[in-house]
Amino acid sequence: MTNRQITLAARPVGFPQESDFALVEAPLPEPGRGEVLVRLQWLSLDPYMRGRMSEARSYAKPTGIGEVMPGQAVGEVVESDDVRYAPGDLVVGQFGWQEHAVARGSALRRIDPLLAPAPAWLHVLGMTGLTAYFGLFDVARPKPGDTVVVSAAAGAVGQIVGQLAKAAGCRTVGLAGGAEKVADLTGLYGYDVGIDYKAGDVNTALKEACPAGVDIYFDNVGGALSETIFRRLATRACVVICGQISQYNLAEPELAPRNLGFLIVFRARLEGFLVTDYAHRFDEGLTRLAGLLREGRLRYREDVTPGLEQAPQAFMGLLRGENRGKALVELGG
Amino acid sequence: MTNRQITLAARPVGFPQESDFALVEAPLPEPGRGEVLVRLQWLSLDPYMRGRMSEARSYAKPTGIGEVMPGQAVGEVVESDDVRYAPGDLVVGQFGWQEHAVARGSALRRIDPLLAPAPAWLHVLGMTGLTAYFGLFDVARPKPGDTVVVSAAAGAVGQIVGQLAKAAGCRTVGLAGGAEKVADLTGLYGYDVGIDYKAGDVNTALKEACPAGVDIYFDNVGGALSETIFRRLATRACVVICGQISQYNLAEPELAPRNLGFLIVFRARLEGFLVTDYAHRFDEGLTRLAGLLREGRLRYREDVTPGLEQAPQAFMGLLRGENRGKALVELGG
Repeated sequence: MTNRQITLAARPVGFPQESDFALVEAPLPEPGRGEVLVRLQWLSLDPYMRGRMSEARSYAKPTGIGEVMPGQAVGEVVESDDVRYAPGDLVVGQFGWQEHAVARGSALRRIDPLLAPAPAWLHVLGMTGLTAYFGLFDVARPKPGDTVVVSAAAGAVGQIVGQLAKAAGCRTVGLAGGAEKVADLTGLYGYDVGIDYKAGDVNTALKEACPAGVDIYFDNVGGALSETIFRRLATRACVVICGQISQYNLAEPELAPRNLGFLIVFRARLEGFLVTDYAHRFDEGLTRLAGLLREGRLRYREDVTPGLEQAPQAFMGLLRGENRGKALVELGG
Repeated sequence: MTNRQITLAARPVGFPQESDFALVEAPLPEPGRGEVLVRLQWLSLDPYMRGRMSEARSYAKPTGIGEVMPGQAVGEVVESDDVRYAPGDLVVGQFGWQEHAVARGSALRRIDPLLAPAPAWLHVLGMTGLTAYFGLFDVARPKPGDTVVVSAAAGAVGQIVGQLAKAAGCRTVGLAGGAEKVADLTGLYGYDVGIDYKAGDVNTALKEACPAGVDIYFDNVGGALSETIFRRLATRACVVICGQISQYNLAEPELAPRNLGFLIVFRARLEGFLVTDYAHRFDEGLTRLAGLLREGRLRYREDVTPGLEQAPQAFMGLLRGENRGKALVELGG
């Protein structure tokens, strides 16, 4: 029996292409002492993976050429040398883009399929849900009545940020690209206003949607769209820098006016964060997210692509914003 | 008797020139009910005044063409219709660039010339001292052992920031332009390291001066110099945006790579502030600053220009960074 994997074949220059990835076969791995063999069922695709394909200095070391693409996945334990796990258990871990993986038991988290379906542990009860939770409540710290603007508001993080902010008594304004996603903003995720940033004048739409200014801007995209939003900040606003997807695929950096003076004008704060810094508080976050989910106050949409071999195309679609909901790959049963 | 004033003659395009200012004579003003007539002795020159000369949206409304240039000054009460003030009292207020002014008593603050000489109430015990105090302790919140980098470190705000950070147990690194100012950084203001940003490779000098990265960057200048410092931030760094003097005199905005992704990499915070938001805490700040001054732990240098008619030249020199110490105009006795 063999294991199929997607490896990094080449470092992309600008937008990734199919040839930057390779589908390879490797021997089925065998678990060593304290290790667990997992047959993966669901793979999460997330924009941060683009950073790992590049050698630029960042918060994590780059994936090497020929190494398996990194990523979280949910799977079923097949074989275990860790007494805490038995065959049939469902676990989540940093397994990478492949069909089987071995990992130390201590690096895994067991999931409860009765609380939520398996793939939900990769988003609403996983990294993107926790990213929304800590970014909003720990970095931005909203008060009831605050106007919260979210970019990529129908994305995996954005859809949860909007609903958490709403649950915290905020007015929520989401930005997304295209009619389908914008329909989800108000129809599915409960945003007070949805704005299609690809249609019409965003500045005017924002002005109407946020007559008292933007108290919190949860930024997943960066670039020119964010700078339009910066112009509408309220005094003492907070901008949470969660992602900058508009910048990830540029072969040459985009130029813009140096403009940090607006931070003085608005006495505003821009703050970046990484969800992994909150590992010691994941239980807190998951408890809160699971509670809201049980109460029916967190809705989500998944965008599922079948088959590991489709993962590169699905990932490139995610980078182009073509997914509607959390991007997942369903691995062959 | 007449009153000499400097008014705004024209809105500068790019760097201000002599013809943007006018020296005019006006009748000596008379105090109305509750008002005080003050003969001004010392005028403070500060970079923020450049913003008031422009019509661009900001935190304060622009000075109108033909209006007296705005600015804080110290003077002696000549005539008073406010029982709290008597002739001979020394007061500080927002009087503008002129030799006499009337103001409501409630808008003034009495100064104590026994505690510090009159001009010191325009800097170490005035707006620039308070700016340093609240920017450092309220926005950045340093811990002992933090590495604090200050740009325009020999300027009116920077010289105090460095000494306050040192008093708080931090390692301090100052940047200034030119040998004289850099000599003051370590020789007068107690910086651990002084870097001449006009000489040599700032990135390498910073790397040596801050081997564990920059925990706090107190930014008075913005622009390319700041972006060099951003590359050296430590994890969870704070950048206090106090001023952006490198950008104030540009006819066209300077372009730079859109680069907010570094905030994620470093989990860093950029925060702007305005000292006027702390008006309710000025007494706290002045008490602390006066205490350090009495103990000999705050040193300062003044750069005095004699005569109101020289104020425009002195102000343009300040914008070019030619002043060594706090820029003041001594008004005719």
